[in-house]
Amino acid sequence: MDRLISRRDLEFLLYEVLDVEALTQRERYRDHSRETFKDTLDVAYRIAVEHFATHNKKNDQEEPWFDGERVHTNPEVKAALEAYRQAGLFAATHDYALGGIQLPYVIATACGALFKAANIATASFALLTAGNANVLRKYGSPAQQKKYLLPQLEGRFFGTMCLSEPHAGSSLTDLLTRAEPQADGTYRLNGSKMWISGGDHEIAENIVHLVLAKIPGGPPGVKGISLFIVPKYLVHDDGRLGPRNGVRVAGLNHKMGYRGIPNCLLSLEDAVGELVGAPHQGLSYMFTMMNEARIGVGMGAMALAYTGYLHALEYAQTRTQGRRMHDKNPASPAVPIIQHPDVRRMLIMQKAYAEGCLHLCLYAARLVDEERTAPTPEAAEQARLLLEVLTPVVKGWSSELGIRANELAIQVHGGYGYTRDYNVEQFYRDNRLNAIHEGTNGIQALDLLARKVGMQEGLGFRLWAQEVERTIQASRDTHALRPYAEALEQALKTTAQVTQQLLNKAAQGEVERAFANSFAYLELFGTVTLAWLWLEQARKALGKEGAFYRGKLEAARYFFLYELDKVPLLAERLMRLDDVFLYPEQDWLTTD
Amino acid sequence: MDRLISRRDLEFLLYEVLDVEALTQRERYRDHSRETFKDTLDVAYRIAVEHFATHNKKNDQEEPWFDGERVHTNPEVKAALEAYRQAGLFAATHDYALGGIQLPYVIATACGALFKAANIATASFALLTAGNANVLRKYGSPAQQKKYLLPQLEGRFFGTMCLSEPHAGSSLTDLLTRAEPQADGTYRLNGSKMWISGGDHEIAENIVHLVLAKIPGGPPGVKGISLFIVPKYLVHDDGRLGPRNGVRVAGLNHKMGYRGIPNCLLSLEDAVGELVGAPHQGLSYMFTMMNEARIGVGMGAMALAYTGYLHALEYAQTRTQGRRMHDKNPASPAVPIIQHPDVRRMLIMQKAYAEGCLHLCLYAARLVDEERTAPTPEAAEQARLLLEVLTPVVKGWSSELGIRANELAIQVHGGYGYTRDYNVEQFYRDNRLNAIHEGTNGIQALDLLARKVGMQEGLGFRLWAQEVERTIQASRDTHALRPYAEALEQALKTTAQVTQQLLNKAAQGEVERAFANSFAYLELFGTVTLAWLWLEQARKALGKEGAFYRGKLEAARYFFLYELDKVPLLAERLMRLDDVFLYPEQDWLTTD
Repeated sequence: MDRLISRRDLEFLLYEVLDVEALTQRERYRDHSRETFKDTLDVAYRIAVEHFATHNKKNDQEEPWFDGERVHTNPEVKAALEAYRQAGLFAATHDYALGGIQLPYVIATACGALFKAANIATASFALLTAGNANVLRKYGSPAQQKKYLLPQLEGRFFGTMCLSEPHAGSSLTDLLTRAEPQADGTYRLNGSKMWISGGDHEIAENIVHLVLAKIPGGPPGVKGISLFIVPKYLVHDDGRLGPRNGVRVAGLNHKMGYRGIPNCLLSLEDAVGELVGAPHQGLSYMFTMMNEARIGVGMGAMALAYTGYLHALEYAQTRTQGRRMHDKNPASPAVPIIQHPDVRRMLIMQKAYAEGCLHLCLYAARLVDEERTAPTPEAAEQARLLLEVLTPVVKGWSSELGIRANELAIQVHGGYGYTRDYNVEQFYRDNRLNAIHEGTNGIQALDLLARKVGMQEGLGFRLWAQEVERTIQASRDTHALRPYAEALEQALKTTAQVTQQLLNKAAQGEVERAFANSFAYLELFGTVTLAWLWLEQARKALGKEGAFYRGKLEAARYFFLYELDKVPLLAERLMRLDDVFLYPEQDWLTTD
Repeated sequence: MDRLISRRDLEFLLYEVLDVEALTQRERYRDHSRETFKDTLDVAYRIAVEHFATHNKKNDQEEPWFDGERVHTNPEVKAALEAYRQAGLFAATHDYALGGIQLPYVIATACGALFKAANIATASFALLTAGNANVLRKYGSPAQQKKYLLPQLEGRFFGTMCLSEPHAGSSLTDLLTRAEPQADGTYRLNGSKMWISGGDHEIAENIVHLVLAKIPGGPPGVKGISLFIVPKYLVHDDGRLGPRNGVRVAGLNHKMGYRGIPNCLLSLEDAVGELVGAPHQGLSYMFTMMNEARIGVGMGAMALAYTGYLHALEYAQTRTQGRRMHDKNPASPAVPIIQHPDVRRMLIMQKAYAEGCLHLCLYAARLVDEERTAPTPEAAEQARLLLEVLTPVVKGWSSELGIRANELAIQVHGGYGYTRDYNVEQFYRDNRLNAIHEGTNGIQALDLLARKVGMQEGLGFRLWAQEVERTIQASRDTHALRPYAEALEQALKTTAQVTQQLLNKAAQGEVERAFANSFAYLELFGTVTLAWLWLEQARKALGKEGAFYRGKLEAARYFFLYELDKVPLLAERLMRLDDVFLYPEQDWLTTD
């Protein structure tokens, strides 16, 4: 068993729930059909199984190393990405004119989930390159696109994003990297960039770094940040590679997991950079990439949760241990552990988290397609805004639930799960990064509460609430779903009240107190969002025959009984507006 | 900074809260005083810092290995245990007649916490030996004690416990290891033993394995299990070592963490064993060791949580990043991250978990002293029973909260916490074992609900409730504590009702349904227990001057506002007695 992500479930979500087939009515996707989607997923699945999963453990055990000159990775990484390249996946979502096949983003996302479930580190080279390419597609000049975008879409160049510095992770205001303009129109960059995944390697012909830096004399803070292309090797206008640029590896970070992709401290020493777009607009350009990267992180967390769940499920179905509680006869045979209620609890939780987050990630990806191809500008703008609201949830809540799921996958395996002979301990270690990178979950929670739900006078929140409400209305007249619809309605009302109260408090100037509990808000919003999606799944499963659909209904039942029930508690914590987490005048956090 | 466990906090808990000094009134401890306790803790602290903490990272990076003949460990492990031995710590709690100093168990436990915080793997050699020695002290014959107990108390021999087999972890009923009686009164053992920590090494002169096996012809199931001493080297009656016994290493388990102590699959091949006590009583003897080991596991989880918290606290006090929310000036200096509410939340949670569990573990350890030295047999029996009830909570709930705490310690560090340059990622990996070994937390939850709280017609539960009630009564007339006392009173009532309803349901024969949610019961019971202990700490801190005491009051406030508030929710889940986790006639957990 491959145990990556259930193809059956992918098809259920794509076609029965999200009606992705409808996209083929849009001009951009008119050459596509359910068959082309299936073919693409088949190819992705095969490459994921044959080329990615096969070296996932080796990537963990033999991590990249730096010899002072070059960064070495396992040869299987390059081979896997070559298979990925040959399948045309680097360019898949792009225009025909750029060599792409105009594949819907939601299908590409489903493919990405398979690669991440198989080998999240190797998949990350490709996903970072895709994010980089999207920035250049949107904001690069024609000359820059020719030099740096096309080779990425061909899979010859890879991309990175260089935001953080050793002293500045969450706080981009404090970036110190400087970009001095030169007479020839280029810039010279100096500074240090930290946490650069794929920051150096020998896999691609070249590496295109997208670097945030400040042009001296610009405005202070984030308003003075500009975006630059800094290639590892300079590129002549005709595409030939020139000399090595002043980007050096100062060291590799040695991580707990996610080890197959080198993570670098890069030193920029008079590195030649090309300005992307206008000066001082770098942060807004980079948000294009960050938003996409954040969806990618949520998907990665979900993919690891999903594959961990399938590993745990198979183990629980085959490992025998003990007897049912009512069976006191020591001579009766041991039963598969899936029959023990506590093991079953741990499996159902994983199912609810993994399949719920897969739905969430695909829903978000479909919004990207909607934004791109909606029939009216208003509909496109609505999709964009809803995606803005959901991005911190996709990133933050999938990664919180993902780590819970992987923790349970280990627990189902008992002592075996704690050993490197099995796969689940690596998933757990790999997944622990997803709550941290691309903005910690604390940052995501603040982004959601302090920026997103209040955007455009609450329009973002209202769009989300409308979607939840639509599912409630579609369910309330069905006898089996009415209790869920009513519970969700109540939860939605509560969430709206909480949101209003917190935003009012902030508007009155008590910003820290209003937002001190933002993590609980993420928990509330994430839980209601997943309950909504589970009700959608239940709605589409109801009345259909077979264990698969029954499983969907039971997972929804679990979610409403054991997750959505937290809403009043979370709301109470938020509405209280206490000062437990506020920094006091005289701190008492001491150990002496 | 050593950042192990706060000495100030240890002293607060030992003397101000638990009044451990009162033990010096007991005959057994009359030579002791607060000064001898302090001296012992000073010695332990010094050895922990100088000999244990110093190789904790090396133990993780260079794990034990097996050359086909011998198991190799880092030389620092042996050196650390030699320092431990020379300080007399192996025998400390034992009688003068056995070479001990009759140190109270609670003080020895506090010392143990320091060693575990410094280096949980190296400390485990000593703790396993202590547990083994206690079984022999209670159940070994005088000859066995001379041959196997005394050398362990001298630190010359180390001990193990051999319960699990590859096919039988949680289910000891199914053990297959056989012990054939011989004409000379010894037995020959054959079988495989799995997950044996310290199962082989060259650190001690000899290893004393305590092995569960079945004597052919005995009763089926756990009633046919006997306990045997199986030394690595046979021991002559005069104490000289004889030839190597038939215990061989079949392989080492390679774990995610906790790597410094080898974990072995042992093969018994006509191994010579001596029966301990009577035949077929092995499990009850082994429970002596298991109970102690379970308290040790809880303590280990707490120790890792505590040291992780101190690491995160120091990091948060020194790392600067960003500005307060009301400060929009990018030119103002960055603040230490402890000032950001979400970071502060993560620190307060760690403090509440680590210091709360330290209290719980020391409370349990003090019950061991109480059982041993109480003025009346009734009081001793009460202490024993209360300890029985608390053991699964100490093990299960400390390890659940411990892993949460370490997860947060990483999160406070951001990306740095995910690298091996810092210590917290190792604590997290090490701590993940504690929810699994010595009975998974699922087993602990079942033990608590299905066995312990109903013991002796609910006497165990009532003893626990009496203790909680005592704290409530002592607090309710104090203005500042009254709201806590009332909340705890309500939570206690709820817990009693839930317990009664579940035990009634089980008595009516619906055992699986009654106990299906036992993990939620552990969560409920653990949360109320910690709230009780936090109220105790608050009671003893109230009215005293200084940040340390203020911190105790604030942590209690956090616990009552953000943890005890879960009680109604958990109670509702339990009272509902739904069938969500029961194995259905036709399973629907499928991915196809």
